[in-house]
Amino acid sequence: MDLDWKRFVTDRTIDFFLHEIEPIRELTPAIPVTTNFMAEGHDQHDFIPLEGLDYSRFAEVVDIVSWDSYPDWHNPYESLHVTAMKSAYVHDQYRSLKKQPFLVMESTPSYVNWHAFNKAKKPGMHLLSGMQQLAHGSDSTLYFQWRQSLGNSEKFHGAVVEHDNSENNRVFQEVAAYGKRVDTLSSIKGTQTEAKVAILFDWESNWALKRGGGFGRPTRRYIQTLQEHYRFFWERDIAVDILTPNQDFSNYALVVAPMLYLMREETMVALSEYVKNGGTLIGSYFTGMVNEHDRLHLGEWPQVLQTLFGVLPKELDTLYPGEYNQILYKEQTYQTKDYCGIVKETTGKVRATYQKDFYTGTPALVENRLGKGTAYYLAARTDLDFLEVFYQPIIESLQLQQGIIKASHPKVSIQSRTDGKQSYYFLMNFSEEMQQLELLDPHLAIETNQTLTGILTFAPYEVKILRKEN
Amino acid sequence: MDLDWKRFVTDRTIDFFLHEIEPIRELTPAIPVTTNFMAEGHDQHDFIPLEGLDYSRFAEVVDIVSWDSYPDWHNPYESLHVTAMKSAYVHDQYRSLKKQPFLVMESTPSYVNWHAFNKAKKPGMHLLSGMQQLAHGSDSTLYFQWRQSLGNSEKFHGAVVEHDNSENNRVFQEVAAYGKRVDTLSSIKGTQTEAKVAILFDWESNWALKRGGGFGRPTRRYIQTLQEHYRFFWERDIAVDILTPNQDFSNYALVVAPMLYLMREETMVALSEYVKNGGTLIGSYFTGMVNEHDRLHLGEWPQVLQTLFGVLPKELDTLYPGEYNQILYKEQTYQTKDYCGIVKETTGKVRATYQKDFYTGTPALVENRLGKGTAYYLAARTDLDFLEVFYQPIIESLQLQQGIIKASHPKVSIQSRTDGKQSYYFLMNFSEEMQQLELLDPHLAIETNQTLTGILTFAPYEVKILRKEN
Amino acid sequence: MDLDWKRFVTDRTIDFFLHEIEPIRELTPAIPVTTNFMAEGHDQHDFIPLEGLDYSRFAEVVDIVSWDSYPDWHNPYESLHVTAMKSAYVHDQYRSLKKQPFLVMESTPSYVNWHAFNKAKKPGMHLLSGMQQLAHGSDSTLYFQWRQSLGNSEKFHGAVVEHDNSENNRVFQEVAAYGKRVDTLSSIKGTQTEAKVAILFDWESNWALKRGGGFGRPTRRYIQTLQEHYRFFWERDIAVDILTPNQDFSNYALVVAPMLYLMREETMVALSEYVKNGGTLIGSYFTGMVNEHDRLHLGEWPQVLQTLFGVLPKELDTLYPGEYNQILYKEQTYQTKDYCGIVKETTGKVRATYQKDFYTGTPALVENRLGKGTAYYLAARTDLDFLEVFYQPIIESLQLQQGIIKASHPKVSIQSRTDGKQSYYFLMNFSEEMQQLELLDPHLAIETNQTLTGILTFAPYEVKILRKEN
Repeated sequence: MDLDWKRFVTDRTIDFFLHEIEPIRELTPAIPVTTNFMAEGHDQHDFIPLEGLDYSRFAEVVDIVSWDSYPDWHNPYESLHVTAMKSAYVHDQYRSLKKQPFLVMESTPSYVNWHAFNKAKKPGMHLLSGMQQLAHGSDSTLYFQWRQSLGNSEKFHGAVVEHDNSENNRVFQEVAAYGKRVDTLSSIKGTQTEAKVAILFDWESNWALKRGGGFGRPTRRYIQTLQEHYRFFWERDIAVDILTPNQDFSNYALVVAPMLYLMREETMVALSEYVKNGGTLIGSYFTGMVNEHDRLHLGEWPQVLQTLFGVLPKELDTLYPGEYNQILYKEQTYQTKDYCGIVKETTGKVRATYQKDFYTGTPALVENRLGKGTAYYLAARTDLDFLEVFYQPIIESLQLQQGIIKASHPKVSIQSRTDGKQSYYFLMNFSEEMQQLELLDPHLAIETNQTLTGILTFAPYEVKILRKEN
Repeated sequence: MDLDWKRFVTDRTIDFFLHEIEPIRELTPAIPVTTNFMAEGHDQHDFIPLEGLDYSRFAEVVDIVSWDSYPDWHNPYESLHVTAMKSAYVHDQYRSLKKQPFLVMESTPSYVNWHAFNKAKKPGMHLLSGMQQLAHGSDSTLYFQWRQSLGNSEKFHGAVVEHDNSENNRVFQEVAAYGKRVDTLSSIKGTQTEAKVAILFDWESNWALKRGGGFGRPTRRYIQTLQEHYRFFWERDIAVDILTPNQDFSNYALVVAPMLYLMREETMVALSEYVKNGGTLIGSYFTGMVNEHDRLHLGEWPQVLQTLFGVLPKELDTLYPGEYNQILYKEQTYQTKDYCGIVKETTGKVRATYQKDFYTGTPALVENRLGKGTAYYLAARTDLDFLEVFYQPIIESLQLQQGIIKASHPKVSIQSRTDGKQSYYFLMNFSEEMQQLELLDPHLAIETNQTLTGILTFAPYEVKILRKEN
Repeated sequence: MDLDWKRFVTDRTIDFFLHEIEPIRELTPAIPVTTNFMAEGHDQHDFIPLEGLDYSRFAEVVDIVSWDSYPDWHNPYESLHVTAMKSAYVHDQYRSLKKQPFLVMESTPSYVNWHAFNKAKKPGMHLLSGMQQLAHGSDSTLYFQWRQSLGNSEKFHGAVVEHDNSENNRVFQEVAAYGKRVDTLSSIKGTQTEAKVAILFDWESNWALKRGGGFGRPTRRYIQTLQEHYRFFWERDIAVDILTPNQDFSNYALVVAPMLYLMREETMVALSEYVKNGGTLIGSYFTGMVNEHDRLHLGEWPQVLQTLFGVLPKELDTLYPGEYNQILYKEQTYQTKDYCGIVKETTGKVRATYQKDFYTGTPALVENRLGKGTAYYLAARTDLDFLEVFYQPIIESLQLQQGIIKASHPKVSIQSRTDGKQSYYFLMNFSEEMQQLELLDPHLAIETNQTLTGILTFAPYEVKILRKEN
């Protein structure tokens, strides 16, 4: 009933939206309609899409997706490039809802006023964060707000025009400088992102995982876990679409679906078909545990999932914060945390095993060939170090890496957009140090029309935008 | 009024219970009636009897005491044997309410769903914790629940039959194995615990201590302090009854009554008579501070208490967390915490003195001979190290130690039950290491009918049950 | 509106007070009327005047200011002399409201009951804290309460007569001893404090700073910041009046006004006149940011403030807890915290500059000559170490130090009162160690009538009271 209540709230909100736009549609039928989606999580040091509304359903009724982007730049709890990664994740999620360019409806050129500590963007960060929006598919950079109010509760929220009413302050000048660069980028408008990797995110799974008791309530963290997987690809400049299970993922080279807890029969079938036809799929503990009513399956895990992953889940061990198990993978050990699924391999091959506790020696990672494809069942939650060694051979064999530089740098992100004929590359240094990348081929710097070759040097926060004929 | 409100709530709850069972009594007069008592405290890492209802009064109207036993096994904040000790305390408290065997009404073979982190019992722990119930006087092991529900809020609470509906999982097999061992133990049913030590616990003192301001509100912790005293005896396999002051304690060798804050005149008289007739009594700071209306005594501490303990309390110093005083006892110093009573000895002899602050040199422990007995006034709260050196000579001179093994092990608990002719000993290894104990005399292993002698070796979590003719 | 609501609450409370005293005025016109003001902040380890009512307006309608003084002596979170400094601050604030002696309406001879941990005053602390009241201008020491109640919620609040109803306990004897010393001090009654330093505190600025978002909400801490400045003077025995901006500060040698956020035009003018006429003024980040409606000034900082301080504030950088910048001042570096204002000097001279972040090299301290006086703009929040090197030459050039001892000791406070002919000096050792001070001239010990010269030795908590003809 709780799940149905949440579905109903989404329904009612969409109904309200449709009612609201009815006269607008009538009076201005040619003007696209949208409403601003949100992100949340700042209080827990998170930056994730809003959890309360199923935006995958809302996206169907807006003409263009738009959202309010306020990442917590310069925060004291994480490296700047991790903030950038989370920001990138939300951009990609909202871009993927309609798989078309979106709008940034709100952003601030300086600071917000609703955090506990409201730090202004340092010089260059406004430009860098604005360019990141475009890099991930936004066709706009809009500000809340044009002018700071003199009084009331939002008077210390950032704006283009500050209280001094002057063009001679840092914020106005940075907005102007950003505008000048954007002027040279008009050809990017409407270009698309091409991704071969899909991460599946499901609002209903998230709702179901967050309710009720059992296991570790503070550590379920579904979206945050997806971001840990996403980080691997983001640090290697590999484009990712973040889809719901209802979207078509049949043409992706890789589908990452950890913790897809609530699974409808059609999703089970679609995932199986995807693998049989040659796809590579990642599942995990919690994957497929309940049906669309948040009810367990009586008897064992559904046969279609057993066949798909080649395992039979038996138990799910919950670890306390600070408690760890270890897995052995290719002769190295890696730490696991929060959850250790205890499974029995069936048709799958055991690739990693636990090293501690009563389930020592049992499978922690199982690889299962099915038809032309492969499914992996990752039984435990791990840190990034394991995800790196796990995903690296997969991206190599699937040839997923973007081929414009010699080696990726985890703090310099490359995102691209294309109109099919030409590709645009945003190279963004999310660090406060100088960084270097080596180009494989000559590229045109879109703003200067110069051809760049060889080693590129990036100042802190610097953004370069390159273009190349496909 | 607050105190009377709490008494009223107990009254009304009992009235409701009596009203509810009226038709049951009429229809099934031969079937005993009970209702399940509870424990609480998990949120503060405690495991204590429910504080809100005076179960000593409720116990009068049930035919048999029963309770829901969910200790927080395998938690990250304390050693396993400390969890076992707290569990033992609650078992002993509920057994002592009617001084007869009780029922475990609810327990889980695996995990609960209402903790923040819900860890399954590791292999062997279900058997060990089930046996501990029997060891302390339970005539049952009942489960919540037979079958896990497929949906709703308790779907991840443990059960005998899990979602897989199978006999081939760890939980079902462990329940079956436990059942087989219990089958061999039917002669234990109805046997009694014989204890020479009584700890006094008073629900009304607890209510009064928890309300209102003054001293250290977070550090009053009456029940937890009783558990610190209880631990000394539990680690030495000495049986303890936990009585209210209204129960008859005249035949016990030792009565431990620290923090018995609210004291009626009849309790003062009963304690005095007990000591005069040869008993040994422990009182402390807070003991006897108020009457049954939570009102202080105008003038000095009641004369009967001064005569009993041989001291006159003057002040009660409250220590901050992390603040300590020290006492000197038999040429060693020990730390005190939370509370340091400042007293003047009258007829008593000073056995320990403070070493710090403005009350340096004043008494921290006073021993008072009265009639044929002895009363000790422990003015300060100490750690276990002091309680050990304080209680050790007392248990030796009162010959309280159970005489079946050469030396107690703090992590291997021995509890016994008897029908007067034969005694049953439960030897339980509450550790994850191998342990050894040396039997003084041959005993029969009740389940195998083998005679055991000499050194017994215990695997982690292992339970042995021995029998001997009295 | 929120600000006006708070003003209205003060208005209504005063109206209510005036209504209440109407019959009293009629029946006892010769008896002065007061009501007890409060302090607050214990929960955050603060000790500050009550924030909810504008006592500067309330003070106009009472005949004599009185307040309830319950500092958190012997707490575990700060040095004893810091507790004393905060207590001194509140005494000085309430004395300054009418610039006349006040009454301590409530205090405890021992402990309170409403803290989490309620520590009794150690021997000597009651006398020391009582004498501090007199030293700062109180003409009374009144107790809550005469007699401890036997029951109810305040039964463990301290009192002159305790539950034992006896004169033979420490508290009663200390109250009696204090009374005997007070008996010898009757000539002090009605004497005044003469201060050359004024700190400006404004209830309306505090209300405005505490509301709404922006910058660092937990770190605004206006009053606590004033106490950090006050501490410099208190540790050097320099008397301070704590005035509102509406009081006349034209005759003070030094006016300290950091964070005077809400500023009316008349205050800007008065501060300018003060400096032009030879005064020395300290302003800071946040000073003069909004008008009396909590509205920013459209355009730059008001011209009168630019002329006064010789700077133009541009930005205000908010630092996270644990984040620091550094300033270079007279070839030494000092840490800044919480706030770093980024300013441009105009007519002022740069005395210190930032050493880190994008505003490295910009002014952190600006000194501005205006007319016969000097205004300092302290752009950043610093620790006490910087305030010491900043204020030291100022107090030397203004000759502010009390001239009775050779060198001040930060833990031995000297406060004085005078009737114009004779001065009374309270020398109070707020430490648990022996301390020494060297008198410059002979003084009379008022209680013993002995003449003291040279080195005075103070036992822990000791108070000496000296008198000298002016």
